[in-house]
Amino acid sequence: MDTRTTLLAHARDSLDGLRREGRYREFARLERIAGRFPRYRWHPPGGEAPREVTVWSSNDYLGMGTHPAVLAAAEAALRAHGAGAGGTRNISGTSPLHAALEAELAALHGKEAALLFGSGYVANQAALSALLSALPGFHVFSDAKNHNSMIAGMRGAPAARHIWRHNDLADLEAKLRAAPAEAPKLIAFESVYSMDGDIAPIGAICDLAERHGAITYCDEVHAVGLYGATGGGITERDGVAHRVDVIEGTLAKAFGVHGGYVAGDAALVDYIRSTAGGLIFTTALPPHVVAAALASVRLLRADPAPRARLAERAAALKAALDAAGLPRMPSASHIVPLRIGEAALCREVARRLLAEHAVYATPINYPTVPRGEERLRLCATPLHTDAMMAELVAALRAVLPRAAGARAA
Amino acid sequence: MDTRTTLLAHARDSLDGLRREGRYREFARLERIAGRFPRYRWHPPGGEAPREVTVWSSNDYLGMGTHPAVLAAAEAALRAHGAGAGGTRNISGTSPLHAALEAELAALHGKEAALLFGSGYVANQAALSALLSALPGFHVFSDAKNHNSMIAGMRGAPAARHIWRHNDLADLEAKLRAAPAEAPKLIAFESVYSMDGDIAPIGAICDLAERHGAITYCDEVHAVGLYGATGGGITERDGVAHRVDVIEGTLAKAFGVHGGYVAGDAALVDYIRSTAGGLIFTTALPPHVVAAALASVRLLRADPAPRARLAERAAALKAALDAAGLPRMPSASHIVPLRIGEAALCREVARRLLAEHAVYATPINYPTVPRGEERLRLCATPLHTDAMMAELVAALRAVLPRAAGARAA
Repeated sequence: MDTRTTLLAHARDSLDGLRREGRYREFARLERIAGRFPRYRWHPPGGEAPREVTVWSSNDYLGMGTHPAVLAAAEAALRAHGAGAGGTRNISGTSPLHAALEAELAALHGKEAALLFGSGYVANQAALSALLSALPGFHVFSDAKNHNSMIAGMRGAPAARHIWRHNDLADLEAKLRAAPAEAPKLIAFESVYSMDGDIAPIGAICDLAERHGAITYCDEVHAVGLYGATGGGITERDGVAHRVDVIEGTLAKAFGVHGGYVAGDAALVDYIRSTAGGLIFTTALPPHVVAAALASVRLLRADPAPRARLAERAAALKAALDAAGLPRMPSASHIVPLRIGEAALCREVARRLLAEHAVYATPINYPTVPRGEERLRLCATPLHTDAMMAELVAALRAVLPRAAGARAA
Repeated sequence: MDTRTTLLAHARDSLDGLRREGRYREFARLERIAGRFPRYRWHPPGGEAPREVTVWSSNDYLGMGTHPAVLAAAEAALRAHGAGAGGTRNISGTSPLHAALEAELAALHGKEAALLFGSGYVANQAALSALLSALPGFHVFSDAKNHNSMIAGMRGAPAARHIWRHNDLADLEAKLRAAPAEAPKLIAFESVYSMDGDIAPIGAICDLAERHGAITYCDEVHAVGLYGATGGGITERDGVAHRVDVIEGTLAKAFGVHGGYVAGDAALVDYIRSTAGGLIFTTALPPHVVAAALASVRLLRADPAPRARLAERAAALKAALDAAGLPRMPSASHIVPLRIGEAALCREVARRLLAEHAVYATPINYPTVPRGEERLRLCATPLHTDAMMAELVAALRAVLPRAAGARAA
């Protein structure tokens, strides 16, 4: 076989299929304007002049990515220590800043230790693979809506996988009961689910874990910095952080910078540090990225005001969409999905919002959400004004076809 | 079973085992001094005052991580666009800088397209998994010394794996012959091998690939920026870039910043972009990291002087070690391994170099190299002076026991 010819033909066919289904992704070129977030300059394809737009789909949930103190910390570290880490954590890539950020993150979650990774994706993939490979015969119980990175981590280990219905404690309990009593067990779940905005019953999951001798692994990437008195996430808000064995988080969303981490018992974190390929064999985060993240974590631990403002803005956005009769989906968090229900339509709605109304909202299609649940995913940050919300609602009313206009269940 | 108790006991046992074998890694805290690279401030454990040391184990091979133009590009983008990307590539995380860097990297390798990833590790893992999952019945032929990230990528796909003896064309050919003629095939290898510094016979590998209808995937992370007229790596130096289907590289070594990439045919790169979980579901590189990398790639494409200086410095280091009768291992590249041969000794030599002689060289132990091949891995950058080399040689002569002093084969 001529592999190249066959592979290129397959690639072209697959891409054509995505285009036919309306699922082909073109990355919009968006240039954030520091100091004026959530305003960006959009560079249209084809070389048209850039235009200013309001972005409603950033995961820089609090605008910390353009906070002056965060940028100042990054600049100071850039000037003092340069641009890249220059090596793995073990090969000259660990600066005192890395150690300080790990100590700060451990303290944030009330854990003995924390460990940085290049991203939240890598943290989940590397840490879950390492943990589930540690003991023979592991059984892992995974919420059906867990993120791709957790699934990748579980697939990287020889553990038996059981998928429990999303947030369904009865199903989780049934599956725990059905597994061998003497097998090691891990329950993997998220606190805030990114695409629906619903929240896991963490305390009740910990009850089940204790009853069945399982450890718990909670992905808090859409909650750290945002919930709890000091931004420790839903585990802090619900007073259950001490009952969750491993808390995984990101520095790239509420903290506005880059990178991911896990926090837990010192021996467990040290074991992951000493065995996970995705940590041992990769370049450390740059010192200035670490410095920026450290500044952001410290700011958000000390100041609850951005969290309160986010909650107020999210409520205002939900109220504005409801008042306009737009098909908002239920959400218990700052994440506000708007149902569209069909991939090509979802893309077309987003295209028109951007081209005709200077509003950017990413169309979310399969495989990120199930087919039939295509949506726009909206997030109001503390920097989204009432006037921006009014513009968004007017644009949605102009662009959304009648078919999608009925309020979703 | 109480999983937590069992897992913690296993973790502590494993860590004790690493300590007993001398393989437990403590990350030295090293603070690079911008403007004075390769000088760092070492922060000893236990709170002793920091001391200045010379680092011989940085992968910032050309010192670009502290180049004023690279830092200026990072600062300008930080001020203009903020600290993090704020989303995945598809969800508001693609800036015009990302597109410009991908175009620059494609041009560097003479390919139609390139695609950025969070790291070289992720690039290998995600791209190889995506490619090898594209067609049923794939057979992959992997050099025995391939990096952990490539192995992770191959394991993430259902392909049949064949390990060929390191750089052994006859063994590769035998394994290609033995595989079904009609199966799709991929040959995965590196150009410069990180721990030995030897170089693959890329042209001859491409000959075999053509004869057997295989595609080729070459990891150039230890070569991009360093070899070839414009820094396109060994594939450029040897005039074979057009014969290699996918070239994978990093922005975190010679380019001195952070991130990884693949370059190849437009349809292949677009297919990886559209299907690889490690790209779709993770935050994009921060715009200022991309800006710094873009400045570095442009500088090194235009100016061969740092490459010439690196070659001269590497030759000088090899000559200085040889003149002193130190156990240098053979190397065809800028990487200079010094054989120690035992894990605990390797750690002890490195510890004394640092504590007693202000010289930092990372001990490289299993699993990074096979047991019995423990070594110090040295790299002279253009900024390592003759005086620094003399200090290094004197320190090694003082610290290396007689047993390790015989010149390695």
